[in-house]
Amino acid sequence: MNRERFEKQLAFILEADKEKNILRQTHLTGHGRRENDAEHAWHMAMMIYLLKEYSNDEIDVAKAMMMALIHDIVEIDAGDTYAYDTKGLESQKEREERAAERIFGILPDDQRDELRALFEEFESGESPEARFAKVMDNFQPLLLNNSNGGADWREHKVTKSQVVGRQQTSGAGSEEIWEYTKGLIEENVRKGNITE
Amino acid sequence: MNRERFEKQLAFILEADKEKNILRQTHLTGHGRRENDAEHAWHMAMMIYLLKEYSNDEIDVAKAMMMALIHDIVEIDAGDTYAYDTKGLESQKEREERAAERIFGILPDDQRDELRALFEEFESGESPEARFAKVMDNFQPLLLNNSNGGADWREHKVTKSQVVGRQQTSGAGSEEIWEYTKGLIEENVRKGNITE
Repeated sequence: MNRERFEKQLAFILEADKEKNILRQTHLTGHGRRENDAEHAWHMAMMIYLLKEYSNDEIDVAKAMMMALIHDIVEIDAGDTYAYDTKGLESQKEREERAAERIFGILPDDQRDELRALFEEFESGESPEARFAKVMDNFQPLLLNNSNGGADWREHKVTKSQVVGRQQTSGAGSEEIWEYTKGLIEENVRKGNITE
Repeated sequence: MNRERFEKQLAFILEADKEKNILRQTHLTGHGRRENDAEHAWHMAMMIYLLKEYSNDEIDVAKAMMMALIHDIVEIDAGDTYAYDTKGLESQKEREERAAERIFGILPDDQRDELRALFEEFESGESPEARFAKVMDNFQPLLLNNSNGGADWREHKVTKSQVVGRQQTSGAGSEEIWEYTKGLIEENVRKGNITE
């Protein structure tokens, strides 16, 4: 074992621990507390494995899972930007680039490059793995929120066009899950959880 | 899409959400709050991907990651048993068997069988993936605890033979990480964090 290499890997692993303190807007099932980034990523990775049969394209499952596990790590520096926060979304890209530089830079060079590439691939959605991981990034909070009677949508007065605008990107990764999602959105519009 | 099948998968995914409320004895870095099962599993899965070069044997990475992601799911019914709680450990096996029956039973039959088998394989440590996932189950809390000056060991007055007893099982999955672990244990014994 090259100890210097190993200790860089451990330093990254300890840095990543901070994701457990970054709260998202989504609440846990049973109207629980707000979810954090690590929990969200854990849930997404499990969903990729369990729901891979619905991916439009064949995927490398380990790669898609790792993408999910690390896709929010830049929020350690850049913070969480709510999907419907127009102002925050403007500066998000630049804040996240700087964070990626610093955080992946903790790793040995080969893994810095590998994880940075995985992160960029996820962001750009330019591979089957990225597109399927993004389905989970959309569908996981929708599932929790739906199980809570749409409380997060109501709190933020989210409109149907906002939800559709975000969720429709799921079609590129899974036509089947996007079809199912449309039904859930309609149901929540009917119930008044999402504004028409 | 077979909707009945999909909705069983979603029911399992929502059930798994409860892991986010199961607290472990380990504290987050920076002497933070106690960690929960979902966060621990997220960290383990990431570590499997990042540290796979140290596995004694070649592993199927996606399989080992999924094992890590679900290995504590039975604690939704059975609760967390601290690694050095002798009394709790006695009844743990039976409580966890019943929980596995119920929780994996939420899934469609093929995935119930697949995940149940993954869970049992992890428990028995009878595959390269199980042995390497177990290294992470040992090493992840050790790493956090070490970063916190051994506060968890001190609080529970843990002895060197207890820590070695648990951590030495890591050797079967990674001789290199077990070697490194021995050094960390010695250091914490010297500092008085672990009782000689």
